[in-house]
Amino acid sequence: MNHLIIMAGGVGSRFWPMSTPERPKQFIDVLGVGKTLLQLTVERFEGICPIENIWIVTSVRYQELVRQQLPELPDSNILLEPCMRNTAPCIAYVVWKIKKRDPDACLVVSPSDHIVLDIHEFRRVVMKGMQFVADGERILTLGMMPTRPETGYGYIQMKNNISVYQREIHEVEAFREKPDLLTARSYLKSGDYLWNAGIFLWKVDTIERAFRTFLPDVATLFDSMEGVFFTAEEQKVINRYFPECRNISIDYAIMENARNIYVFPASFGWSDLGTWGSLYEQISKDTSQNAVIGDGVRMIESTGCIVHVPVGRSMVLQGLENYIIAEENGVLLICRKSDEQRIKEFSQQ
Amino acid sequence: MNHLIIMAGGVGSRFWPMSTPERPKQFIDVLGVGKTLLQLTVERFEGICPIENIWIVTSVRYQELVRQQLPELPDSNILLEPCMRNTAPCIAYVVWKIKKRDPDACLVVSPSDHIVLDIHEFRRVVMKGMQFVADGERILTLGMMPTRPETGYGYIQMKNNISVYQREIHEVEAFREKPDLLTARSYLKSGDYLWNAGIFLWKVDTIERAFRTFLPDVATLFDSMEGVFFTAEEQKVINRYFPECRNISIDYAIMENARNIYVFPASFGWSDLGTWGSLYEQISKDTSQNAVIGDGVRMIESTGCIVHVPVGRSMVLQGLENYIIAEENGVLLICRKSDEQRIKEFSQQ
Repeated sequence: MNHLIIMAGGVGSRFWPMSTPERPKQFIDVLGVGKTLLQLTVERFEGICPIENIWIVTSVRYQELVRQQLPELPDSNILLEPCMRNTAPCIAYVVWKIKKRDPDACLVVSPSDHIVLDIHEFRRVVMKGMQFVADGERILTLGMMPTRPETGYGYIQMKNNISVYQREIHEVEAFREKPDLLTARSYLKSGDYLWNAGIFLWKVDTIERAFRTFLPDVATLFDSMEGVFFTAEEQKVINRYFPECRNISIDYAIMENARNIYVFPASFGWSDLGTWGSLYEQISKDTSQNAVIGDGVRMIESTGCIVHVPVGRSMVLQGLENYIIAEENGVLLICRKSDEQRIKEFSQQ
Repeated sequence: MNHLIIMAGGVGSRFWPMSTPERPKQFIDVLGVGKTLLQLTVERFEGICPIENIWIVTSVRYQELVRQQLPELPDSNILLEPCMRNTAPCIAYVVWKIKKRDPDACLVVSPSDHIVLDIHEFRRVVMKGMQFVADGERILTLGMMPTRPETGYGYIQMKNNISVYQREIHEVEAFREKPDLLTARSYLKSGDYLWNAGIFLWKVDTIERAFRTFLPDVATLFDSMEGVFFTAEEQKVINRYFPECRNISIDYAIMENARNIYVFPASFGWSDLGTWGSLYEQISKDTSQNAVIGDGVRMIESTGCIVHVPVGRSMVLQGLENYIIAEENGVLLICRKSDEQRIKEFSQQ
């Protein structure tokens, strides 16, 4: 059976004040479409697995938000981390749970706060990727075909241009950290580099074996807890032992070390919405290049702005060029778009 | 006895969204001092007349606002105009009422939405002016000594530099409309021109006689209604006949025509707060020349801005130069300070 793991524990500090530690961006209707990014993520996987096979791993503080936004999800499918330990322990927890119930499961792991514009192509890629990993001991990542020399993403280098599976899937040569602009330009030009979207596919026993090889301490810890999974004791035990896990990403711990890693180059209008700038790129602009989310905003002689305010909020914005105007929870931020990397600083008292 | 007439029927459209037809600027704490401009106006006259001699003329739609903001004022001292007919009919109404009760009254007429910084000097000037008009058939205006070549005010030209009363009060040569900049500069240079602050002093029989001379139709109309004043019928009769008055200002109808007009040149830190710019001039600025009213506003790399937002409203404003940022009733306006004369246009759908 297919299972979906959605990682929904991030805090999204770069989108303040829209995103706050109390309500990070995955729980917000960032695009102004009436659905939060988490809801859009679940919707994107419709038809790939049934709702009881969807697992949300999040922080204990977001349990209620997940319940409210996914009311059809069984409560027991919300896994609560007592603290943040990056992606490897997070994935190990849900992998160990799933393998106890369904040892032949095929898994897809996805962030909760990205967007995909072409859902049909996305589903095609994921279904084909599932077949590929079901057939063997394979770890598959989805690689986004780059459209610009982006320095804000990690890259996946394909081994060569010869596909190993149905002309679409390639072996991975290496994972590359976020590059500088010159390097990013050479990546774009070469055609061998893809953006790492943080979406992974594998069989449960494949990833279990990878944990045992590359993170044996984490594997041993979850082995020791396996007996309480799906019992009333589980949360108590997790709260006690989960914090002992190393703080390490799945990329760094496993992807960069394992040999059986593959990448599926894909183009389905993906964005991690990591910055206001990337949100600006994704949403439609008026004739003055303003991207406005909010139904009560009137732009006058303003250009190149991104506006994100709640439904019903009334604003008249005149004479602004290239600003971010964002409001949430009664806090308004106005700052220059070119200074958006300083938003975390602006948000501090 | 001294009486105070406060005209509080204006709609203040230039201060949108702080000022709206539902709550014009006289009913707002424009300066962020915890008191509205109307409350500050009443306070300014403390010691000049008792509360039962204060008369507020306003629109029927602002009756509740006046009650709330001046709870100590007798209800019968709030006079309700059924429609706007400019200052002459407004003043006639309250003059006819006062003369019925107190035919020897000395009156001072004041707008409700101006500010005065030096209240002690203001009281000295008003008390001395009251003595002057009590002594004869005189109409006295207060003239503000100009500090800049302002083109937004009307001017009062003194007849000559020889005072007619205690070295302070002068005869009036003429009232002058708002000048262009060149003319305003020549006014400032000559020293004979004063700003018209719309504050008038006179005995009740003096102004009654002026009405009979220059606005006989208005005088006749109020003569015909006098019998119902201070009865249960008053409002009904006013609602029926007040709209028949000509729409005309006291300046145009009487001041510019009467002969016994005097002016008291004064300096008590007056502003009509007619524009955001004049408010900006009046309130204290931070080291970046931002004038901020609101306790939750953080200015970063912003200069020359004026911010007026409700208590408790949180904002971070970065990289803004010379903007107006104003919020009231859930509506936010941001516009260039240099475009403030277009605010009425911005406020329209």
